[in-house]
Amino acid sequence: MNAIDLNSDVGESYGAYTIGNDEKIMPYISSANIACGFHAGDAHVMRETVARALEHSVAIGAHPGLPDIGGFGRRNIDISPQEGYELVVYQIGALWAIAKAQGGKLHHVKPHGALYNMAAADQALAEAIANAVYDVDPNLVFYGLAGSALIAAGKKAGLKTASEVFADRTYQADGSLTSRRAPNALITDAKEASAQVLRMIQEGKVRTQQGTDVKIDAQTVCIHGDGAQAVAFAEQLKGELERHGITVKAGNC
Amino acid sequence: MNAIDLNSDVGESYGAYTIGNDEKIMPYISSANIACGFHAGDAHVMRETVARALEHSVAIGAHPGLPDIGGFGRRNIDISPQEGYELVVYQIGALWAIAKAQGGKLHHVKPHGALYNMAAADQALAEAIANAVYDVDPNLVFYGLAGSALIAAGKKAGLKTASEVFADRTYQADGSLTSRRAPNALITDAKEASAQVLRMIQEGKVRTQQGTDVKIDAQTVCIHGDGAQAVAFAEQLKGELERHGITVKAGNC
Amino acid sequence: MNAIDLNSDVGESYGAYTIGNDEKIMPYISSANIACGFHAGDAHVMRETVARALEHSVAIGAHPGLPDIGGFGRRNIDISPQEGYELVVYQIGALWAIAKAQGGKLHHVKPHGALYNMAAADQALAEAIANAVYDVDPNLVFYGLAGSALIAAGKKAGLKTASEVFADRTYQADGSLTSRRAPNALITDAKEASAQVLRMIQEGKVRTQQGTDVKIDAQTVCIHGDGAQAVAFAEQLKGELERHGITVKAGNC
Amino acid sequence: MNAIDLNSDVGESYGAYTIGNDEKIMPYISSANIACGFHAGDAHVMRETVARALEHSVAIGAHPGLPDIGGFGRRNIDISPQEGYELVVYQIGALWAIAKAQGGKLHHVKPHGALYNMAAADQALAEAIANAVYDVDPNLVFYGLAGSALIAAGKKAGLKTASEVFADRTYQADGSLTSRRAPNALITDAKEASAQVLRMIQEGKVRTQQGTDVKIDAQTVCIHGDGAQAVAFAEQLKGELERHGITVKAGNC
Repeated sequence: MNAIDLNSDVGESYGAYTIGNDEKIMPYISSANIACGFHAGDAHVMRETVARALEHSVAIGAHPGLPDIGGFGRRNIDISPQEGYELVVYQIGALWAIAKAQGGKLHHVKPHGALYNMAAADQALAEAIANAVYDVDPNLVFYGLAGSALIAAGKKAGLKTASEVFADRTYQADGSLTSRRAPNALITDAKEASAQVLRMIQEGKVRTQQGTDVKIDAQTVCIHGDGAQAVAFAEQLKGELERHGITVKAGNC
Repeated sequence: MNAIDLNSDVGESYGAYTIGNDEKIMPYISSANIACGFHAGDAHVMRETVARALEHSVAIGAHPGLPDIGGFGRRNIDISPQEGYELVVYQIGALWAIAKAQGGKLHHVKPHGALYNMAAADQALAEAIANAVYDVDPNLVFYGLAGSALIAAGKKAGLKTASEVFADRTYQADGSLTSRRAPNALITDAKEASAQVLRMIQEGKVRTQQGTDVKIDAQTVCIHGDGAQAVAFAEQLKGELERHGITVKAGNC
Repeated sequence: MNAIDLNSDVGESYGAYTIGNDEKIMPYISSANIACGFHAGDAHVMRETVARALEHSVAIGAHPGLPDIGGFGRRNIDISPQEGYELVVYQIGALWAIAKAQGGKLHHVKPHGALYNMAAADQALAEAIANAVYDVDPNLVFYGLAGSALIAAGKKAGLKTASEVFADRTYQADGSLTSRRAPNALITDAKEASAQVLRMIQEGKVRTQQGTDVKIDAQTVCIHGDGAQAVAFAEQLKGELERHGITVKAGNC
Repeated sequence: MNAIDLNSDVGESYGAYTIGNDEKIMPYISSANIACGFHAGDAHVMRETVARALEHSVAIGAHPGLPDIGGFGRRNIDISPQEGYELVVYQIGALWAIAKAQGGKLHHVKPHGALYNMAAADQALAEAIANAVYDVDPNLVFYGLAGSALIAAGKKAGLKTASEVFADRTYQADGSLTSRRAPNALITDAKEASAQVLRMIQEGKVRTQQGTDVKIDAQTVCIHGDGAQAVAFAEQLKGELERHGITVKAGNC
């Protein structure tokens, strides 16, 4: 593979509250997952974030989440698949209009936080979400955890999918992410993180915590946007990829 | 004129809370103003209401409001024109997606409650809202109080407009509505209300509280949907209009 | 036992949205569980509901729920015990002030919906909630599902507890409630429901779905307040209890 | 006068969103106005902020605001006096319980943002708020803009009041604050701000933008908590006051 997508969650500020370094991360990413007002973001922040993405030619994606501003969409809420379908349709539409009013268009959808994690492991919820995306626009690319129910559901719904991998998370022998509660869940060394990404792209493999290799499909890499270190890492990773002849760009454009 | 639009605010239920008689009012109206989740309605209620409108061939309209579920969008909030622009774009988009997912499309936009009243008297806010509608879709019809800043702003933005009149409200010599706080603000006699509507349509005039006539532009009539009386009145008004050779249908379809 | 408490969830209206028959159920209950604004209720509704309870000499209780107006507090949200502690303290305080401003005082606390169900089966969450109640006022009575982690946690915290039973729900051989998803979860015959309550009070036993008897501690009976049938049932049950010499009154007053 | 109160708005973080420098401002203030969850703050932030205030022996005050997290309580909302009463009672209660659970108690109440500004100029709203405070606890001190309807309402209700002045705002000949929209509304020079405060305390006068002096009642000085400059100014002001023999402490303790 000679191209990869770098995505980041942006537009997570809310009213008087600022979070993240959107301005600084934009130059290093190829696709932006923009919060849609349910777990973060509001109509004003969404508008500004779309403008920023257009300015940097970054692909615009909806980042729908659970209705939980107070919990930043990180707390599991026991919604039905139908509720999942409905809240995803609603949020994609809100961002679609904000993009359209600026002459922009949506490229992809990536569920946020607890919605992402719940659906990655719950086929019925994953299918409801994928169908929501398809029913609004069958040309949208569906981002989900590599190897998860999200990717399977996206393919079943007839969507183009992008399998997501993480630079700074470790993996288990079965290809799943190490739980954040476990030790060694995070890779804090930037070189190690870059090397893991490179190998996932070039060899389609990742070294697991068990010491074995496991196959992994890497079409988009999630980059964290908050913290000065995050921006430095994004810059370094992009440089490293380009030095290896790998272009950073959103897929299926 | 041999045709008129009857519109009603619907889809105002929220979660476990039910309000209105949407099911019963639908057969008598030609356009539905559907709440978009800021002052009433949620993604599920919006979906059901769109389905109901499609079933009855009622034109689907967005009914954006102020962010105030607790106050049902009836309390003035001192937003800037820019905030007005942004929250209208967001809400239209949300309903657009919910309609599109069911094969439906939006026909019009009518601001709700305090947003409607504030903008009717505030040119800057009215223009911001009209521009929001235009920027999302220039083919949408813009509903606003007859003779108000909303209609002027809609025309200025390049939108088709529908001047709204009320069957059950009385008017002042300057063409404005009698304040709800004043005595005689409401017409409670159904025959009187029907007669007022007929005259507004046929003669373009309304008898004011001062005893004089004033010209009024009547392209759409607002029908209240809550209460058993409201449904009976809608049925009666539609019958009365048809007996006078006036077809009930949404304009600019 | 010659006395029993009849409790009901009230004050669940919200802004323009009305739910329940609070006015009609009040004469038949001895304690009111008043929603505190997180899943239902608002400051105005709470004030009116407290006034109504004072008028009918019904014991005033806080009915704290998960932060989820859109879901009426019925959707499980994966909160930590600490979050449970904090949101219960907050909500009790809000109702305390509303009662105090009217010369009333709080008698009990009963968690609502998903918070009740989650804590009934989760010792850490139950203990956090019980500690929250104790830390605000150790004299409050803690209502919880008979035989559940809630009652155990309340006793451990040093609170007086009231074991709650249901008139219209069936029970399993292990003393738990039949899941609402199972057939026969609900008792729809009013006489059967009254008989079940009487036996729980007089004999401390309930006939289970397996045909066996199981011991049950009945100190307070939950009466549903919504629906005309609910009010009729409440009236009938109260009459039946009094005919058997059982006084309806809140405990530990 | 040889003592003055320095107050600051704190506890304005919300969920994942952090705002302000509470930790750093605490050592320099004598009373803390803690957001109560309607415009900022949540149960967790309130708990942490109360703990911090107790640790620094800073007087704990409720800082109730309009229900508007998205607007940080800064947008006027056209509430009735009754709504103002109810939302103030509710919010005081919430903070009361959070303080009580930690062995703390409330000292004062200061309305926030748009609620403060609206009530400063609206006698009916000011009286409703003052009555709310009195009805919850007549011993609470009522903070309001010096010379405004808030202070008059507090006195009328029978509350102890604290007239608030601003270090970094300029004044008009009639004793009102220069509008933020006007030039010269803010004093950006720290020495000038300190001098203004000193004179208000020692002479009971402030030099106005018109060049004249006007009498002003200064019992508490509002210190802004956000920004590194704010903390430095607080430290400097406290030092300056102490060098002039003026003790920094909350009144009526």
